[in-house]
Amino acid sequence: MGEMVRTVVVHDEELLRSALAQLLRSDDTLEVSAHSPDTGTPDAEELPADVCVVDGECLQGQDEVRGERLRGRYGDRLVVLATAKRPGVLRRAFEGGALGLVDKNAPTHRLITAVHTVAKGERFLDETLTVALLKGAEMPLTTRELGVLSLASQGAPIAEIAARLHLSRGTVRNYMATAIRKVGARNRVDAIRIVQSAGWT
Amino acid sequence: MGEMVRTVVVHDEELLRSALAQLLRSDDTLEVSAHSPDTGTPDAEELPADVCVVDGECLQGQDEVRGERLRGRYGDRLVVLATAKRPGVLRRAFEGGALGLVDKNAPTHRLITAVHTVAKGERFLDETLTVALLKGAEMPLTTRELGVLSLASQGAPIAEIAARLHLSRGTVRNYMATAIRKVGARNRVDAIRIVQSAGWT
Repeated sequence: MGEMVRTVVVHDEELLRSALAQLLRSDDTLEVSAHSPDTGTPDAEELPADVCVVDGECLQGQDEVRGERLRGRYGDRLVVLATAKRPGVLRRAFEGGALGLVDKNAPTHRLITAVHTVAKGERFLDETLTVALLKGAEMPLTTRELGVLSLASQGAPIAEIAARLHLSRGTVRNYMATAIRKVGARNRVDAIRIVQSAGWT
Repeated sequence: MGEMVRTVVVHDEELLRSALAQLLRSDDTLEVSAHSPDTGTPDAEELPADVCVVDGECLQGQDEVRGERLRGRYGDRLVVLATAKRPGVLRRAFEGGALGLVDKNAPTHRLITAVHTVAKGERFLDETLTVALLKGAEMPLTTRELGVLSLASQGAPIAEIAARLHLSRGTVRNYMATAIRKVGARNRVDAIRIVQSAGWT
């Protein structure tokens, strides 16, 4: 038998965190611990690990700082759980340098294989996610357009978006109109819906 | 030892479905199977169960028909996983008659206790969810206002909402304005955000 692979599971929800940890423990070459994404650094230093398994949804939106922290701690030894429905989530994990991307609809043994592959420093990418990942690459909006939509999605009116991004109102309206057209939306609300459901914000 | 409790786990995502099933199997008085919420009736009849454990998110929005199907099949013997962050999800599960409501942040043994409690036909409600459930009861919108917001959130313009609900445009605008005021939103997008994040749509 080879060396044990120390694996840490990060998930928002205690119940699913425990469940995933228990699933991984079915492989007795994995030494598994689990913690919340909000655990601060001191606690985490007591949990050294070779591989970190994390739900991609825990790295989204306002939780982006968590992604930074995990990358700082585990480097590219991340196995991110994602689905083809959310190409933006996938894309972010991929661009963030995570070596492993596992489909949440994959059977258990795929996750275990992913952990071992990433532990060796090799890339693991579920085939079912490849097309979605390429779609995510086609995100049609510029950073500015996405920024405008993202602030709008939080309920900010045009004037506030303009102030926060140091732009004129007219410019904000232009970005908004371009974003709506580019994603094929019918209006502002529709554009926000499209962008959010793809996991781009 | 008493009789075995036949438990079925329903979750969108195969990986989490397996993980939850495995977690429940740590109690050897539970006989656990797992299936996708999209499994049709014939398949499901091969899976008789005393209790059904389901993620509340799988019963939301366009997935409501699944909730109907599960209720038709398991009656009130449902254990719904939910969080305090989404009072609307909780409320829907509660009003749908589910006997069990378990916090996704609860430790594993709570879920197992919930399954046994519901198997006996008794109610199980995590204390951490009670306040959120009461909040969900305070949903300030009428069915009409919520319907208008819900169509708007799918990107429908005023004219289309009016046509679909057999209302005049002016009436739709009035419902919209009232809904925005009632939820304390700054504008239409903000109202949609508030209503969605609470799980009311």
